[in-house]
Amino acid sequence: MGTVTHLECLACGARSEPDGHDGACVVCGGIRDVFYDLDAAREALTRDALAANPDRTVLRYAPLLPIDPEGRVTPLAVGSSPIYDSPRAAAAVGVGRLLVKDDGSLPTGSFKDRASYVGVARALAAGADVVAAASTGNAATSVAGLGASVGLPIHIFVPATAPEGKVAQLLTYGARVFLIEADYDATYDFCQEAVAKFGWYNRSAAVNPYLVEGKKTCGHEIAEQLLDDLPDWVAMSVGDGCSIAGTHKGLAEMHAIGLIDRVPKMLGVQAAGAAPLTKAFDAGAESVERMVANTFADSINVGMPRNPTKALRAVRASGGRYVNATDDRIRAWIPKLARNTGVFGEPAAVTAIAGVEEAVAAGIIGPDESVLVVVSGNGLKDVRSAMSAVDVPKPIPPKLSEVERRLEAEA
Amino acid sequence: MGTVTHLECLACGARSEPDGHDGACVVCGGIRDVFYDLDAAREALTRDALAANPDRTVLRYAPLLPIDPEGRVTPLAVGSSPIYDSPRAAAAVGVGRLLVKDDGSLPTGSFKDRASYVGVARALAAGADVVAAASTGNAATSVAGLGASVGLPIHIFVPATAPEGKVAQLLTYGARVFLIEADYDATYDFCQEAVAKFGWYNRSAAVNPYLVEGKKTCGHEIAEQLLDDLPDWVAMSVGDGCSIAGTHKGLAEMHAIGLIDRVPKMLGVQAAGAAPLTKAFDAGAESVERMVANTFADSINVGMPRNPTKALRAVRASGGRYVNATDDRIRAWIPKLARNTGVFGEPAAVTAIAGVEEAVAAGIIGPDESVLVVVSGNGLKDVRSAMSAVDVPKPIPPKLSEVERRLEAEA
Repeated sequence: MGTVTHLECLACGARSEPDGHDGACVVCGGIRDVFYDLDAAREALTRDALAANPDRTVLRYAPLLPIDPEGRVTPLAVGSSPIYDSPRAAAAVGVGRLLVKDDGSLPTGSFKDRASYVGVARALAAGADVVAAASTGNAATSVAGLGASVGLPIHIFVPATAPEGKVAQLLTYGARVFLIEADYDATYDFCQEAVAKFGWYNRSAAVNPYLVEGKKTCGHEIAEQLLDDLPDWVAMSVGDGCSIAGTHKGLAEMHAIGLIDRVPKMLGVQAAGAAPLTKAFDAGAESVERMVANTFADSINVGMPRNPTKALRAVRASGGRYVNATDDRIRAWIPKLARNTGVFGEPAAVTAIAGVEEAVAAGIIGPDESVLVVVSGNGLKDVRSAMSAVDVPKPIPPKLSEVERRLEAEA
Repeated sequence: MGTVTHLECLACGARSEPDGHDGACVVCGGIRDVFYDLDAAREALTRDALAANPDRTVLRYAPLLPIDPEGRVTPLAVGSSPIYDSPRAAAAVGVGRLLVKDDGSLPTGSFKDRASYVGVARALAAGADVVAAASTGNAATSVAGLGASVGLPIHIFVPATAPEGKVAQLLTYGARVFLIEADYDATYDFCQEAVAKFGWYNRSAAVNPYLVEGKKTCGHEIAEQLLDDLPDWVAMSVGDGCSIAGTHKGLAEMHAIGLIDRVPKMLGVQAAGAAPLTKAFDAGAESVERMVANTFADSINVGMPRNPTKALRAVRASGGRYVNATDDRIRAWIPKLARNTGVFGEPAAVTAIAGVEEAVAAGIIGPDESVLVVVSGNGLKDVRSAMSAVDVPKPIPPKLSEVERRLEAEA
């Protein structure tokens, strides 16, 4: 286990001990950050030691994680998602080099498995009977899948209006789903009430500081996989803000322990219809104003981000920026990314590369710069959106002349 | 590259040279098998050499593959799918030990990526302009995705009645899709006509002997990942029969070069509604009779298997068996597998474990035996089927008393 030295509240600065309280700051209710003994991590995580470690899961970064590597963890292979170098995507987006990290290949098909990995391990270590979450999205699917892998009961609270397909996935993994006759905000608050009442382990990254620690592993991997060949930018789509904050923290830790010699600039990409963080960033603010969220990229359709402080600080600390991508641009990138790389991403996942195109057009990213985009969710999670982005050809009779005609017409 | 010594027709026995003809036997039109210099492979693929090889793709088995490792291949991370040991699934199915190999984690979400890996590499080496396939299923999606990753044009022939969602995935990857006004059999035949006319590279495992060579890598991996801890049985769902034939060949090769000391028995599982191979196997026949196929497990809804010889011989050579699983049993195993392992499989993928249950009931597999099931496709490919296998709970108002009531009722 990484030696957690202490935690610190991002709101009031209160310092606290790693005493098994996995919730918010007890002084002010703010979100806390977790600190480690970096000297110990520096000794353990050398380039040679990492190269010699056959474990491909996120546990290879145990010296920087708040879990005991000897304790019980999910057996699912969370970690070491591949990075692809794509000259054609680089040309399509207008940058010097484009790398794609495919987190859609993780066990439940999304980046969120990184957070659930740590959440489930901590819940097991704490002897929790149940892990609870309020979500219909990737976080819920992820904790349901990882919970199933270790036999840990998972309770999910969702609005009764949630799409049946998403509820079906949760039920397939055996999660107990509470369909609540309320909107998402009220359902979320009700879940917190239930957690308090029944003593369940809380998988909300807005409350539980350890979930972002799992997300860090994306940054750890980028550092280890690229070493001296880091990109100028790392681009990620942003909803609540925990994922970009976590990835940046992972990169910053790897810099702090000397594995890499700099930290890339972070490009936070919001859908134009749900962009409170871009607005706050551009205004130099530390907090966000709630907006009515309206984007088809459902995983980032967030009007009131739950982790604005971490999300804004991470991008500022990196010297990066926030940009917005319109739904039209996002939609167009579903097939464009797949055709240029072979990686099929869900709408929120391709939002990252749509934002790179936006940043290039705005002069934020130069035409010779290099960019890594994190594809945060598998396109199979939302085939309907992909369908809306492609044109289905007209049927033809089985005649070779018809094939020839089409080949000539499209030549 | 593996040194291919020769090919041999399974129908007429004609021996042929590895001369760049990637089609059927020129003497009789039968499917051919590919043979290698196993002495060279034995020297290259030792336990130590494999352990020291950092390449996690199927290219680590290059000495047994018909492709040049220095040549162009897809950059997508095809290979090293994880194997999970699941005591709860073992108890649920009634065997001593149950292992799950999750091929749903491969880049396009199915086992078929193994065959497409080799197909695309050989097409590139041959300087092909186009790869063609007739399918709406995982084979088509796979070659479309891997083709996109290297910029190789892919032409797919599908019946005009194909489900729009599957066509959309092909179009997302940029495949040129020909919707043919004909049924599947006629569409398949028309695709062969077009291949002959236009000189495209043929991705049909019934014609091209090299695709099964890619499928072998599943067997190579099982051997390498388990070594002296092999299961008694390897269970796979069977449609055309190429996948089980390939996996068995991979295991047999690893046995022949001394990496493992025996070959597990193969359990071929067909859906009861599409089981011509089980019928032929039980009758001791070498060929199959066409039947009207009718199972909801669409990836194995095959009435006339295209590779019966390889499929029957492989299972017989291993001392294994064919069994059938009913659609009801298959459907029930979608949530049962997910809940016991955290692995969400499509219907055809969970057919393998449904068949293990069947084989235990029939006394074919003993209660103390160990079994590895290959989960051949990601459950996200068919969420609708998962929906039909679970019960959606009734909505409740946001009151803690309602949560308590349900917890008590379900305790």
